[in-house]
Amino acid sequence: MIIKSIQNQIFKDALSLQNKKLRDKNGVFFVEGKKQVDEIPKNRVIRQVFISEKYKNDVRGFKNVIMLSNRLFKKLSATQSPQGIMAIVEKKHYSIEEVTKNSGLFIILENIQDPGNLGTIIRSADAFGVKAVFVSEGSADIYSDKTVRATTGSIFHLPIIDNIDIENTLNLMKKEKISVFAASLKGKKYLNDIKFPNKSAFIIGNEANGLKSNTETLADILVKIYMLGNAESLNAAVAASLIMYEAAKKQIT
Amino acid sequence: MIIKSIQNQIFKDALSLQNKKLRDKNGVFFVEGKKQVDEIPKNRVIRQVFISEKYKNDVRGFKNVIMLSNRLFKKLSATQSPQGIMAIVEKKHYSIEEVTKNSGLFIILENIQDPGNLGTIIRSADAFGVKAVFVSEGSADIYSDKTVRATTGSIFHLPIIDNIDIENTLNLMKKEKISVFAASLKGKKYLNDIKFPNKSAFIIGNEANGLKSNTETLADILVKIYMLGNAESLNAAVAASLIMYEAAKKQIT
Repeated sequence: MIIKSIQNQIFKDALSLQNKKLRDKNGVFFVEGKKQVDEIPKNRVIRQVFISEKYKNDVRGFKNVIMLSNRLFKKLSATQSPQGIMAIVEKKHYSIEEVTKNSGLFIILENIQDPGNLGTIIRSADAFGVKAVFVSEGSADIYSDKTVRATTGSIFHLPIIDNIDIENTLNLMKKEKISVFAASLKGKKYLNDIKFPNKSAFIIGNEANGLKSNTETLADILVKIYMLGNAESLNAAVAASLIMYEAAKKQIT
Repeated sequence: MIIKSIQNQIFKDALSLQNKKLRDKNGVFFVEGKKQVDEIPKNRVIRQVFISEKYKNDVRGFKNVIMLSNRLFKKLSATQSPQGIMAIVEKKHYSIEEVTKNSGLFIILENIQDPGNLGTIIRSADAFGVKAVFVSEGSADIYSDKTVRATTGSIFHLPIIDNIDIENTLNLMKKEKISVFAASLKGKKYLNDIKFPNKSAFIIGNEANGLKSNTETLADILVKIYMLGNAESLNAAVAASLIMYEAAKKQIT
């Protein structure tokens, strides 16, 4: 069967999930494109897979596959030239307490606004063995199509906890004896000289404004990154990645 | 005087520069927003500064300032909510021969497609004291509004040479006794173990496909970045930034 009518209920239900509020209420998000859909791990619940007519010869063993006319598929897609496959996947929930029992590095993002930066940080966190990424309320949506695409599948590889309150999270971390570092141009210590305890967290602030001053106060140590040239600062995803890379080299992750 | 008519010749000439071919022919590009315009160095030729009506109380000592109605300014702007100031700036040209006479690190970008990545790499290059960035033909436009914005002013701080032919450039570099490294997942050496000679170049490949195989052959040494987790690769701007950071720490830039 091919769904061709925009009045079809299955299509209408799926289309309604373009609205973030309805996605959040249903606890799901979209994953689009062949490579991304292939990255969905077996233990994730896939509510539905949609393919376009032109894609029909290329489906593998998914359950609940629904074929849409090319026109309807394009309406549902977030991209200009859709590849022809997307899935609606259930979010996975982790508690801060459960995740922070582990040793390793935790990344805390305060008010990161650019979905590309957010996705890139999650991708690097995966590459460098970070134990979990915490994303403050007011940050970009980790489940938007741009963020999911920028993670290139890494969104499935490590716990990501969104909508956190920074102060509460830091208090819980301190109970778990996690050392809290924060990237700041005001830092007195250089990243290169940091000895990471085996339970460490690193806070990265907003692209334009850095950390909130209250957050800076709550961190144990402010850290800056060695720079030489004329640029005032680094892109937030670059700064976060340098930190995770250094921690990985020192084998704390 | 406020230009209010879309038939005005000055406005029409400026608007025509939204076309990349005409920008290239005229050797100019747009710089938009207060912070970015403030970053234009004194030695750069500014052809024209446009402000919007609502911005008029906020102009500093620019020559050739032209005021546009808010409506016309919005037409000329590349952003959804323009701040109200933009400049048309002349490009600066550098020759490969002149630039490569210096010691330090050179970055070569092959077919980087994302303007955000390109701008972020230029920003990091500036931060880590890279001597010049070479951008291959077929890469994203370094003078597009997205790239310029992502450089956050760094586009003015170091020589950037675009539309290069990779093979010619590498031949010229070898004559200058520059050691050529390339980032590749096939690399046998880790970035962390590289000793950078004081004249070094590093090639970064395309986001999805990495380096062309011919380019890999031309490099002296293939280098990989230490990773731990499940991610297959890093974002191109992140990989480039890690390389520049390591080189800066080793004080070759």
